[in-house]
Amino acid sequence: MSRDQQFQQVADRFAFPVDDDIKIGGKYTPVLLDGDLAYVAGQIPRIGETVHFIGDAGGTLSLEEARRAAGVSALRALALIRRACGSLDAIVAVPRISVFVRSAPDFTQQSEVADGASDVLFEILGDAGVHTRTSVGVLQLPKGAVAEVDFIFRVRTTDK
Amino acid sequence: MSRDQQFQQVADRFAFPVDDDIKIGGKYTPVLLDGDLAYVAGQIPRIGETVHFIGDAGGTLSLEEARRAAGVSALRALALIRRACGSLDAIVAVPRISVFVRSAPDFTQQSEVADGASDVLFEILGDAGVHTRTSVGVLQLPKGAVAEVDFIFRVRTTDK
Amino acid sequence: MSRDQQFQQVADRFAFPVDDDIKIGGKYTPVLLDGDLAYVAGQIPRIGETVHFIGDAGGTLSLEEARRAAGVSALRALALIRRACGSLDAIVAVPRISVFVRSAPDFTQQSEVADGASDVLFEILGDAGVHTRTSVGVLQLPKGAVAEVDFIFRVRTTDK
Repeated sequence: MSRDQQFQQVADRFAFPVDDDIKIGGKYTPVLLDGDLAYVAGQIPRIGETVHFIGDAGGTLSLEEARRAAGVSALRALALIRRACGSLDAIVAVPRISVFVRSAPDFTQQSEVADGASDVLFEILGDAGVHTRTSVGVLQLPKGAVAEVDFIFRVRTTDK
Repeated sequence: MSRDQQFQQVADRFAFPVDDDIKIGGKYTPVLLDGDLAYVAGQIPRIGETVHFIGDAGGTLSLEEARRAAGVSALRALALIRRACGSLDAIVAVPRISVFVRSAPDFTQQSEVADGASDVLFEILGDAGVHTRTSVGVLQLPKGAVAEVDFIFRVRTTDK
Repeated sequence: MSRDQQFQQVADRFAFPVDDDIKIGGKYTPVLLDGDLAYVAGQIPRIGETVHFIGDAGGTLSLEEARRAAGVSALRALALIRRACGSLDAIVAVPRISVFVRSAPDFTQQSEVADGASDVLFEILGDAGVHTRTSVGVLQLPKGAVAEVDFIFRVRTTDK
């Protein structure tokens, strides 16, 4: 199965519409291609117009819900890369993801939440999904979302 | 109007002295040139020796004050780049900015605060100010500042 | 004294076993070599199997304890780079470190905590330890650690 088919399959499991316009809040670009690197802006678990998973991990939301939110953020990043590069086959590696988890004061499973994004990257990209990661528990996030994830991808540029 | 003139004009609006020494706390360098990338350390809204905008967004400070603070952080970054590269004309793009907003517990407008930095980048750099962005709400920041912003710029190196 | 000897000496002061396996939680790689850059995942102050310095800076832990925790995180990063590159002599510069400090609500000395990581980098790497830095106060961190630090190193690749 191709990566793009794999993407479709995982997205279906999350009820994530892969061809929708990715709505972006604020005054910036969601993806910036800089040579062979593609920077993706911090993604919250927005599906279409709606932000899902509003709340704090270990408080109003469970670990499992927060993990799913991180998965949606990863799907959004892949949708953005596919739009910018034509196909997910362009991805060679993922040098860095940063996972910010809106956390209840005593919640310390930020790594387990971040696994939700890591799982999506590995399931769709295989070995090219390998990445370094930083997981942090924060007080708040835009729209009150439980997770926000940003990404640096290494991609094959079109002239190759 | 040149970018450097534009910088002067925006800085005047913020009462930001563009030629002052940029005081830096801690044991590190404010700018590191790495090939064509210029990394700028996290900037709080310090003007001269004084940190302005101390407090939390949505608590002791308003959204508008926090947004202005993010603007000052962006001016500081531009002042540092101008010093390191000779002119703001060296800037080609801004692959990533990270905006940390000291937030009241229920404040979720971190993106709107970050617009304060984005606006300064676009107003002074035009198309070269395009950037990806991550906005996060945190519990505290150095000196109690309401915002801290770090930057990666792509610059034209001197040998070109 | 060589950098690797210097590393041993500083590590001894922290009771940090430089040749232990670096245990990593979660589903990702601790180091990713991307051309001349080595990305190191967020490091908490784990020594062997045990996470040390659990608590919040300015609350259950002192500034000095938090600073030491940041130092251990830096030692872990250097141990990972040494394993990936063969020797710390491979390091040319450190474009960026991000220091997340689990903070009591009114603790604003995140820069002073981050100095613990900066000191280790400078003591072992000398001029090549120069770096830009972002220090942020967060609500929680994985395992309840007081500090987490991630790194981007510039390294000499093996073909040179």
